[in-house]
Amino acid sequence: MPVFLTTAEPDFETAFAALLSAKREDAPDVDAAVAAIIDDVRTRGDAAVIGLTSKFDRLDLSPETLAFTQDEISAECAKVSDEDRAALELAAERVRAYHDRQMPEDARWTDAAGAELGWRWSPVSAAGLYVPGGLASYPSSVLMNAIPAKVAGVERLVIACPTPGGAVNPLVLLAARLAGVDTVYRIGGAQAIAALAYGTATIRPVDKITGPGNAYVAAAKRRVFGRVGIDMIAGPSEILVIADRDNDPDWIALDLLSQAEHDESAQSILVTDDAGFGRAVAAAVEKRLETLERRAIAGASWRDYGAVIVTRDLHEAAALSNRVAPEHLELCVADPDGLAERITHAGAIFLGRWTPEAIGDYVGGPNHVLPTARSARFSSGLSVMDFLKRTTIAKMTPAALAAIGPAAERLAISESLEAHGLSVRARLDQLNRREAQ
Amino acid sequence: MPVFLTTAEPDFETAFAALLSAKREDAPDVDAAVAAIIDDVRTRGDAAVIGLTSKFDRLDLSPETLAFTQDEISAECAKVSDEDRAALELAAERVRAYHDRQMPEDARWTDAAGAELGWRWSPVSAAGLYVPGGLASYPSSVLMNAIPAKVAGVERLVIACPTPGGAVNPLVLLAARLAGVDTVYRIGGAQAIAALAYGTATIRPVDKITGPGNAYVAAAKRRVFGRVGIDMIAGPSEILVIADRDNDPDWIALDLLSQAEHDESAQSILVTDDAGFGRAVAAAVEKRLETLERRAIAGASWRDYGAVIVTRDLHEAAALSNRVAPEHLELCVADPDGLAERITHAGAIFLGRWTPEAIGDYVGGPNHVLPTARSARFSSGLSVMDFLKRTTIAKMTPAALAAIGPAAERLAISESLEAHGLSVRARLDQLNRREAQ
Repeated sequence: MPVFLTTAEPDFETAFAALLSAKREDAPDVDAAVAAIIDDVRTRGDAAVIGLTSKFDRLDLSPETLAFTQDEISAECAKVSDEDRAALELAAERVRAYHDRQMPEDARWTDAAGAELGWRWSPVSAAGLYVPGGLASYPSSVLMNAIPAKVAGVERLVIACPTPGGAVNPLVLLAARLAGVDTVYRIGGAQAIAALAYGTATIRPVDKITGPGNAYVAAAKRRVFGRVGIDMIAGPSEILVIADRDNDPDWIALDLLSQAEHDESAQSILVTDDAGFGRAVAAAVEKRLETLERRAIAGASWRDYGAVIVTRDLHEAAALSNRVAPEHLELCVADPDGLAERITHAGAIFLGRWTPEAIGDYVGGPNHVLPTARSARFSSGLSVMDFLKRTTIAKMTPAALAAIGPAAERLAISESLEAHGLSVRARLDQLNRREAQ
Repeated sequence: MPVFLTTAEPDFETAFAALLSAKREDAPDVDAAVAAIIDDVRTRGDAAVIGLTSKFDRLDLSPETLAFTQDEISAECAKVSDEDRAALELAAERVRAYHDRQMPEDARWTDAAGAELGWRWSPVSAAGLYVPGGLASYPSSVLMNAIPAKVAGVERLVIACPTPGGAVNPLVLLAARLAGVDTVYRIGGAQAIAALAYGTATIRPVDKITGPGNAYVAAAKRRVFGRVGIDMIAGPSEILVIADRDNDPDWIALDLLSQAEHDESAQSILVTDDAGFGRAVAAAVEKRLETLERRAIAGASWRDYGAVIVTRDLHEAAALSNRVAPEHLELCVADPDGLAERITHAGAIFLGRWTPEAIGDYVGGPNHVLPTARSARFSSGLSVMDFLKRTTIAKMTPAALAAIGPAAERLAISESLEAHGLSVRARLDQLNRREAQ
């Protein structure tokens, strides 16, 4: 059974603090192994990547077979059923439409001093997307990572996806094709991250690497950060559901379980203003756990990290949710928009009783790569912004420099940066000479 | 003398690649020391911070004197000359006006399926700004970090600034006051970062930490990342100037030196389509180096990492600049806007002969915290976005769920995530029952 807390009880604050600070993930320390793999790939290039793929994925590749050919991809895509293809196409279309709206605008203006100022957005030139192999090889994640990159205008987009023993998920290749990915490499692990960051004779380096992966992939991404950009290092997934008594307990139970079934370290929290409803949901979870395919995983997550919290009212529920800063937040209440006004920290909000979180995982449109482990306090989900960068622009006229240059010179002197001041002064002196003529 | 390269020469590519990959910074490995300091602050709180401040800064504090009082700040601010105050006020006003324009907009729309989608921006609740003590204590950096945070709407903004032996720069405190900083702590080093990230009895934790610092500060920021957000870890500064022959060589020399004087690891590169002009600038640099206050630093930077590159034309110059992806880029040419069209990677562009980079350090308006070490390929300068996060929003109606839910269910099944599918199916079944009635 998960913890059952009531805010009205005197020891609530202690118990809630314990819930907030529970360490849900014990990542193995693979940093030394990863450092050695990266060095190997930097030194020996393709040979290292091929050797490590043979060792870890039991797959013998050559430089010519590191990437799938377009024909191989077509053959795999042909295996996908019409129904699955239609679902993936709908998802791709909706995710693209949502992310199209995220494109930020350039700006340029002239201010009162006569200075022209502004900024300009430009895409990262090349991006690499990591896609895990095996069970965690999710076609939906391919769409969620690749589509924002293409919308941003990334010229060259590649995927690294291990294919243990040669096995590949056709839906992953179809998702890659629908999203406009250029090349799919049959490689994974730290060796794939190293190859994408540093390049080999066959694999061109990229500027940004995104996508989830195991402890080796995460450690490798941390190590190559700086050389290339990376996205966040995702932790185990979370959902917090705020629900009043007017919900079907089974619906809410399924929403909680759809997070719990991801991973034994996932966390599902129900916050309700009705203790009876809280108990009914907990009972519905137990009932569903009797038959759920992934009941071992979901059951462990719910037992170890799940929680039901009963609050005095829904405003208190919103305040608690802000302290959790959940990755996913469902507001299953009569006035979800009103309650959303009180939410300050959450990765994604699902409004109302008809918006199960799973909609957002696939076809809603917003990205499903979201900040975990309370990092919604300071970070955002994946978006086109992750594949763009801003260049600021300034252009002075002689008059603008005359107006604001003396203040720059003054501040440079106060910071003991003489050449800074002189670079302004030399130009101001020229203006003064012109005027004197 | 710096390297002097010509693109027309056969060995250019090799020499340019060497310039690109030159390692300019050899950061000492202080990670173990920093880990111990962070543990100490987490365990002993204020007592650890006070002890470490006594040891490293030769300053004895108590919980009551960790922060400056408002009266103490007022007394320091009163020491600033009217001229310096006016310059700082002009800078603050211009930086605020620029960053005001960066505020992104919320969005909400209903799509063809009847789904309401959108996003909402919200500020980080509390941010901490690190300000180095001693020589590198720059009031301009206080403005550049604090103003975007306040524009974003950060509620609580604090500074940690070591005051070795009690010495403080009055301009730093004035900049903090002008920017609206709430509290200034007299602490520095890894202990300050640990206190800001984890909190002590006296110091409340923040959600995001920004600002430059020494190797200890940088290592501490890396370690607390995840617990809180951090900005980039800045490397040594760079400038690349593209200049034609119609510039005063002395102006360009001063622009190059204004980067070189920051740090022996700074890098200044001139790219010109005129070899004679390149030689004239190199000569002007040598002449200025005879008298410049910081000639030891600037001379070492110019000698070790400086470069003059002669290209066939300005288009080739732009292409080379894109490979460097410089932090600062000056376009001192007849048509700077035209040439800027060809620039794909740069932190900040300074257009035309009347826009020395130093203007951007102080009073231009754009931020002077910019991506170094070629990271402009994938990242941007500091902005209000660093203090905001985006929450995505989705709201389904029964009709919208009926339209797109089956595709979500289908994809959930293909990913073997049964509860995901059931959470959608339970709702669809209810709709079907309604219709059947």
